[in-house]
Amino acid sequence: MEDLYKIQTPEDLRKLNIKEKEELAENLRQEVLNVVSKTGGHLASNLGVVELTIALHSSFNTPSDKIIWDVGHQTYIHKMLTGRRNKMETLRQLDGLSGFPKYSESEYDCFETGHSSTSISAALGMARARDIKKENYHVIAVIGDGALTGGMALEALNDAGCSKTNLIVILNDNEMSISKNVGGISSFLTRLRTRKSYKKSNAYIKKLVKKLPGNTGDNIINFVRKIKRGVKQLVIPNMLFEELGFCYLGPVDGHNIEQLEDIFNKAKAQEGPVLVHVLTKKGKGYIPAEENPDKFHSTSSFELLTGESKKEKVADYSKIFGETLVKLAKQNKKIVAITAAMKDGTGLAEFSKQFPNRFFDVGIAEQHSLTMAAGMAKEGLIPVVSIYSSFYQRAYDQVIHDIAMQNLPVVLCIDRAGIVGNDGETHQGIFDMAFLNLVPNLTIMAPKNFEELKQMLEYAVNLKAPVAIRYPRGGEDKEILLKKGNAIKESINYEKNLENSENNINSEENLKNNKNNINSEESLKNNKNNMNSEESLKHNKNNISSKIIETGKAEIIKEGQDISILAIGKMVAKAQKVANILEEHNINAEVINARFLKPLDETTIINSVSKTNKIITIEDGILRGGLATSTLEVLEKNGMANSFIKPYGYPDEFIKHGKVEELEKLYGLDEQTIANELIENQKI
Amino acid sequence: MEDLYKIQTPEDLRKLNIKEKEELAENLRQEVLNVVSKTGGHLASNLGVVELTIALHSSFNTPSDKIIWDVGHQTYIHKMLTGRRNKMETLRQLDGLSGFPKYSESEYDCFETGHSSTSISAALGMARARDIKKENYHVIAVIGDGALTGGMALEALNDAGCSKTNLIVILNDNEMSISKNVGGISSFLTRLRTRKSYKKSNAYIKKLVKKLPGNTGDNIINFVRKIKRGVKQLVIPNMLFEELGFCYLGPVDGHNIEQLEDIFNKAKAQEGPVLVHVLTKKGKGYIPAEENPDKFHSTSSFELLTGESKKEKVADYSKIFGETLVKLAKQNKKIVAITAAMKDGTGLAEFSKQFPNRFFDVGIAEQHSLTMAAGMAKEGLIPVVSIYSSFYQRAYDQVIHDIAMQNLPVVLCIDRAGIVGNDGETHQGIFDMAFLNLVPNLTIMAPKNFEELKQMLEYAVNLKAPVAIRYPRGGEDKEILLKKGNAIKESINYEKNLENSENNINSEENLKNNKNNINSEESLKNNKNNMNSEESLKHNKNNISSKIIETGKAEIIKEGQDISILAIGKMVAKAQKVANILEEHNINAEVINARFLKPLDETTIINSVSKTNKIITIEDGILRGGLATSTLEVLEKNGMANSFIKPYGYPDEFIKHGKVEELEKLYGLDEQTIANELIENQKI
Repeated sequence: MEDLYKIQTPEDLRKLNIKEKEELAENLRQEVLNVVSKTGGHLASNLGVVELTIALHSSFNTPSDKIIWDVGHQTYIHKMLTGRRNKMETLRQLDGLSGFPKYSESEYDCFETGHSSTSISAALGMARARDIKKENYHVIAVIGDGALTGGMALEALNDAGCSKTNLIVILNDNEMSISKNVGGISSFLTRLRTRKSYKKSNAYIKKLVKKLPGNTGDNIINFVRKIKRGVKQLVIPNMLFEELGFCYLGPVDGHNIEQLEDIFNKAKAQEGPVLVHVLTKKGKGYIPAEENPDKFHSTSSFELLTGESKKEKVADYSKIFGETLVKLAKQNKKIVAITAAMKDGTGLAEFSKQFPNRFFDVGIAEQHSLTMAAGMAKEGLIPVVSIYSSFYQRAYDQVIHDIAMQNLPVVLCIDRAGIVGNDGETHQGIFDMAFLNLVPNLTIMAPKNFEELKQMLEYAVNLKAPVAIRYPRGGEDKEILLKKGNAIKESINYEKNLENSENNINSEENLKNNKNNINSEESLKNNKNNMNSEESLKHNKNNISSKIIETGKAEIIKEGQDISILAIGKMVAKAQKVANILEEHNINAEVINARFLKPLDETTIINSVSKTNKIITIEDGILRGGLATSTLEVLEKNGMANSFIKPYGYPDEFIKHGKVEELEKLYGLDEQTIANELIENQKI
Repeated sequence: MEDLYKIQTPEDLRKLNIKEKEELAENLRQEVLNVVSKTGGHLASNLGVVELTIALHSSFNTPSDKIIWDVGHQTYIHKMLTGRRNKMETLRQLDGLSGFPKYSESEYDCFETGHSSTSISAALGMARARDIKKENYHVIAVIGDGALTGGMALEALNDAGCSKTNLIVILNDNEMSISKNVGGISSFLTRLRTRKSYKKSNAYIKKLVKKLPGNTGDNIINFVRKIKRGVKQLVIPNMLFEELGFCYLGPVDGHNIEQLEDIFNKAKAQEGPVLVHVLTKKGKGYIPAEENPDKFHSTSSFELLTGESKKEKVADYSKIFGETLVKLAKQNKKIVAITAAMKDGTGLAEFSKQFPNRFFDVGIAEQHSLTMAAGMAKEGLIPVVSIYSSFYQRAYDQVIHDIAMQNLPVVLCIDRAGIVGNDGETHQGIFDMAFLNLVPNLTIMAPKNFEELKQMLEYAVNLKAPVAIRYPRGGEDKEILLKKGNAIKESINYEKNLENSENNINSEENLKNNKNNINSEESLKNNKNNMNSEESLKHNKNNISSKIIETGKAEIIKEGQDISILAIGKMVAKAQKVANILEEHNINAEVINARFLKPLDETTIINSVSKTNKIITIEDGILRGGLATSTLEVLEKNGMANSFIKPYGYPDEFIKHGKVEELEKLYGLDEQTIANELIENQKI
């Protein structure tokens, strides 16, 4: 059986018998464990689809038949079986294999994925193209039960169901990922419930029975009961998909290769759209992952024997966000938290425990999450929605049409903003500043460190207008923090203030104020007045951090007269480091923390450039539309556009995977490169 | 009954008896007809909800109870019953009533809508807020069967179903709007179908029967048949909604006020989420609209007696798009057309007739439409997707993640781009240039007139890379066209070329080329080479208009040396008019038609500004992120940013309703205002 290590392609695989395939499964499972324990990556979902992947490539004639993997993070086994088995050690590394399907790697990766719920749409498009071309191959979408509740997957299911097109949807139902918060569809998948309608039909049947000649006894009633149970069990599990026009097959044990191959062969023989319901277990075969699939959904490198993470646990922005929100929510009962299947990732687990009635995980449904938040805000609550940057792209219209247009006080927390690193191009959060910058009525902020995130979050929940806060994956820059020290002092004061501050939970009155206060112009004005007046500060305990965060006000971190460096968010630390290097070359840079992308602090910028005559911007996003664009506009308006030396950020392209530091170097965004360019620049 | 004309508020309404309410319905219907025949607007949907609106305001205690109208174009009756009856003549006019719900008009408009499928999310948010505030009122979402198939509505249904929150969803099922293209859900709504699962259960029941002691005869079999029919009829219509966790009530006749009030009272008494299935008829009570609800969905002013439009029928961009695409599709079998419930509006009706197998209306499902197109493009087709500008906001991630990131040759046709006028802020297409400008790999164009749209469409279907073409609602500027004449000549040549050109339908080969050609860099290079070479032009009949449209090449409409005017799309005509006025003042402007927003023609701009030393931009969209921003970037890069005099476009705010010309005046975008500003500007 040594030979099984040589299985590299589906052709090799198809020559094996069932017993060999089962052994291969164990080999692959062990290899994936070995690899991911070193590289990090998506583990639990890959362990769950080992047999499914083997059965798919055995039963279907890939690459002629097309398999589209929804989300795509469960394709490690697929990669190992399609010529990439010996490259797995490079997974998610710069210039190595991607953690998602990529054409450039293999013709077996027939459609690229990364975000959830796209596979049925893509598969239907491919199937319709095949029909138009009068060709003949199978198109298979593999989608998890979580992804199935995304609106786009439901749109596709609805369209595919009436299409009469040959199309196979494999529902990869991970028992473990079903939880009550995923909604009606997952409830439907897990159990049959007793419904009022049955009671109604019960009465109807009883009436029928009475009309039958010579049949009045208990025998018949029992008989009816049995029939009804039979009808229910056979009809109902299929109903939702069958009603949508799919032929439903299953459920089948997703870890039994023989049964899987059997049901796939049945699916191939069907005409029209087919749904195959496959039951799998996330983390299958690795006890730590089976017991804790959430932890091993996406993991850093870990000890194989214990499952313990090798990476030192350090606080990250998500954690600080979650902790701060819990504190704020204790003071203000109007605060609620919302996420879209990212409870742990966004740091909201503790909030969900402490305020179960004020926490809403709507499942993979970004669009719904934001418009639901708009409805809550309209009725006087303060919804704080935390979603990853690249997934906000899914809910752009909801930000524009349902939140900003109605000027509703929803707090948009944009986690994983900027370069995220190893997850690569589908997950880099490089567009959010640019596309949100276009939205009227929206305030946009980014904190330079943990402390500023706390302050901004408190500022945001009190703003009474739509506001976005973006912050990166991972932690703050300790190096700069230690050098400065101010931030730490601020932090202690802040904690104290927060604890001392009185609860502001006169919700009746607040709600009234809120309703009257939907005009942001006015609310911003009021806000500014509050902040500028010492008096109001003393009386308004709710505005504890207003001393620090002022609407549209940048922070001058370091004064200087040779060049202005304007940065935002985590890039402020980089700006400080650039300034430190410049200082060694006797260039005295002024470092400005923009804090607000919108409204941008025109006065501070103009004052600084009037002094230095030159400015660069540094941002963790694409150049067009974000800080660089807004700065250029300000300079142009003031006749100073020629002072703009260079915008630092990401160019007009998708950014591949790699470590954050590697990518920053690659794009010339590390402090040394920036400083060198400025030193060499003759203008300074 | 004269008094019924005085009914102005729900309080007045609630005092009436059923007979009076029925008469009121007829009065309101007549009034809506009178108003819309003069103002234009959404007619058929409003005629369909007269009784529904009366019953809702009768049964529910508005405004304490909250009614959220999905889409919101069916709120005319609601407006008449909530204090706005005497303002209806101002509907959709500048400073008059909006055609959609607006807080600023009435506290009865509790959530603003405009785009489809938001109401259940908003209602669920409001209901959850109510529960958290421990208040007690009803929240009602009124949603059409078309809007229900939007992904966001399905996400909300899924979440609401398991929420146990009191919430009433009114499904306004317009018999007329159900068509096969709306998908599985609408099929589900219209009829019960015989399914394989029943056959299976049949066998099971037969087995059961055989096991019953003493029962083997035909009697029992007949009995089982009857029971099964009973179970089916009672259980199945409810199943989809009941399985999602809703209590299903209905269906009920939506034109019977008494029955409606009765079922609403039942709904009020239920705990948890309730779905009330109401059957209405679009256009009810007005024969021309009943017979032709599509035509009267959104109408201009018309003759009340005949239903004939008062507005002269003129060609618009949508029509030209549709006609051109039919011609191109005859030549190239790979072209398919896709829309999302906008077949007529986008001009695709004729295409759908001529190529029924190559036309896909996926219903209100923008996200799905684009990713499905990506799947088709991946398999070698050339999908052309036509959607209105403001609805592209719904599918932003699909453009980024599924089309541009994979560099797939999908043609995005952006209809209703720019200011649309009377539909107002939810429908103004002012963001598309800015948010698409951020997307890597995407080419973005806008035609100056019909002729250029034809050329651009042909260019786009041959580009082999993602490309967007935006064009406005309505027609081209005849005035400028007549003055020039060139366009007309071009047009004739183009028609001729198109007819003569050979069919290029060797699809096998094309598909192969297409697959190899997914690298846009290369394809753009090839394309450029093709265009620059006379030789290739002769041999490549497919590139008939390549003489005219060159990738990233602007067109100099008029040479001049005093100022450069750079415009895009329909604003090119405005630029010409501005130049004409300037000429009367001896200012000789250079007028440049950008044609491409991306890639922007840097060379032409720099050459022009080198000569004139000053430039303005004119665009039909928001200033940030579009033509103005891109131009400023080009100038800055070339050290010419101080030559930028003024960007003309829409500021950072939502643009209200009114006629296009009125709004352009209001924002200083009419030719006279622009010219005056330039004449007064001392720099010229």
